[in-house]
Amino acid sequence: MLYLVGLGLSYETDITVRGLEVVRKCKRVYLEAYTSILMAADQQSLEKFYGREVILADRELVESGSDEILKDADTEDIAFMVVGDPFGATTHSDLIIRARELGIKVEAIHNASVMNAVGACGLQLYQFGQTVSLVFFTETWKPASFYDKVLENRRIGLHTLLLLDIKVKEQSIENMARGRLIYEPPRYMDIATAAKQMLEIEELKGQKAYTPDSPCVAISRLGSPTQTFKAGTLAEMAEYDSGEPLHSLVLMGRQVHDLELEYLDEFVNDREAFRKAVKADQEYFKPPPYVPEAED
Amino acid sequence: MLYLVGLGLSYETDITVRGLEVVRKCKRVYLEAYTSILMAADQQSLEKFYGREVILADRELVESGSDEILKDADTEDIAFMVVGDPFGATTHSDLIIRARELGIKVEAIHNASVMNAVGACGLQLYQFGQTVSLVFFTETWKPASFYDKVLENRRIGLHTLLLLDIKVKEQSIENMARGRLIYEPPRYMDIATAAKQMLEIEELKGQKAYTPDSPCVAISRLGSPTQTFKAGTLAEMAEYDSGEPLHSLVLMGRQVHDLELEYLDEFVNDREAFRKAVKADQEYFKPPPYVPEAED
Repeated sequence: MLYLVGLGLSYETDITVRGLEVVRKCKRVYLEAYTSILMAADQQSLEKFYGREVILADRELVESGSDEILKDADTEDIAFMVVGDPFGATTHSDLIIRARELGIKVEAIHNASVMNAVGACGLQLYQFGQTVSLVFFTETWKPASFYDKVLENRRIGLHTLLLLDIKVKEQSIENMARGRLIYEPPRYMDIATAAKQMLEIEELKGQKAYTPDSPCVAISRLGSPTQTFKAGTLAEMAEYDSGEPLHSLVLMGRQVHDLELEYLDEFVNDREAFRKAVKADQEYFKPPPYVPEAED
Repeated sequence: MLYLVGLGLSYETDITVRGLEVVRKCKRVYLEAYTSILMAADQQSLEKFYGREVILADRELVESGSDEILKDADTEDIAFMVVGDPFGATTHSDLIIRARELGIKVEAIHNASVMNAVGACGLQLYQFGQTVSLVFFTETWKPASFYDKVLENRRIGLHTLLLLDIKVKEQSIENMARGRLIYEPPRYMDIATAAKQMLEIEELKGQKAYTPDSPCVAISRLGSPTQTFKAGTLAEMAEYDSGEPLHSLVLMGRQVHDLELEYLDEFVNDREAFRKAVKADQEYFKPPPYVPEAED
């Protein structure tokens, strides 16, 4: 059996009781270690907590070495642990489909992921549209595919969760060219970088998917001992010192309930100013967008 | 401290290790018992597992008696347990805001909810739009607010998660009128009822938000020992015997990745027919909708 075990967001003890029982009985235990991190735990503390060796699985092993992970999983129990939920931001469909091809049973042990725990900021999950990812810009590569999706969400009044880039075990172009397996230190996008990149793209596109005055909620270290929420405008976010990773950003939509605003009061510098920004932003995409008849 | 503890989806052991530690140390332990159920556990088995008394909190207690729940929470630890995640489909913002007013600290212990675990069906969470709820129709009341939201999602190519009604501790109109505290047996909407209600509303509205041939995925008993996925058209869902509760339904959007389809192969009766339905359905809302300029 291949067990996909969600580890939740932060602590060793965020694993479920059932997940822990599984991990302790498995023959091999892998930790997917390239798309996210546990904020209050690491390989050593996990090994101590489980009383088991934990094998770090980097992108190469997961994407090219899945048969190594799945070895003997038809007769033995193997655990593949994922920060958050196994079907959260990064899905491991490839691995599961490969397991099926090999006749290996698969069971998922779910856990919280940022995709649902984001509700802790006070914005209601019902009111979120599609989730998008923001990747680090370089001098020559500024991917903006998030923009149209944000626009789609905003047109229908919905909030957008923006997941911020994580770069782990990346090589510099020079090292890659020279075939040197030297990796750069990990990088985690912070709120200010995300907001600046968003503003840069708005400047380029000019479709007013959002403005510097659009209201946002910064979510830092969700589910960890130092979890912090901050509500403010996108321009404020571009100046915000969000501290240690991990971070996510929510760009709010026009549909904001009073209860959501009341909840956010706790996280704003100036309640009046923030409510004013929310109100002003609600003028965008009003009236509701024209919805064309299906062309068939 | 008020701890909001997510219990996950099904088993007693779906609670996190940290959640369990908290529950065991709290002075009073409430279980929110009107918006969902744990499929493989009940009050008795939870009490046995925790070694603690569990107080069932019905809608009345949570909505009108929050001060009773919060009593002494400034000096004692109180646990308020919620099936799924505390910020999942049902948020308890009222309770949290009330706690803040009383100067009580609040900490959430997150867990999986249907809002993220739905990814286990093979459709990617990134591709979901807003989540909607379907409530039981009566002769005279057929709420259709879900329809426009489904249409909005479908226009931009996204999947829609439909949460199906749960009726627990409801009185009949007669018993209510006579002031008799007699409750009807609990009711949980099944897939066929959901699909029939959706088709009824499409018939009324006629905007082709979806058709009987639109592809869907039925999700039954997610995260439980008898979890079942079924992919098929909405018309097939209207005839589908989905078995014991709980159920959710996903109406697919136009944006379907090959990997998603490959994953769904496992859950269809006739792969060719299903892929044909997906392809035919993709003709709706093509080309992408016209997005008007903001009017400002």
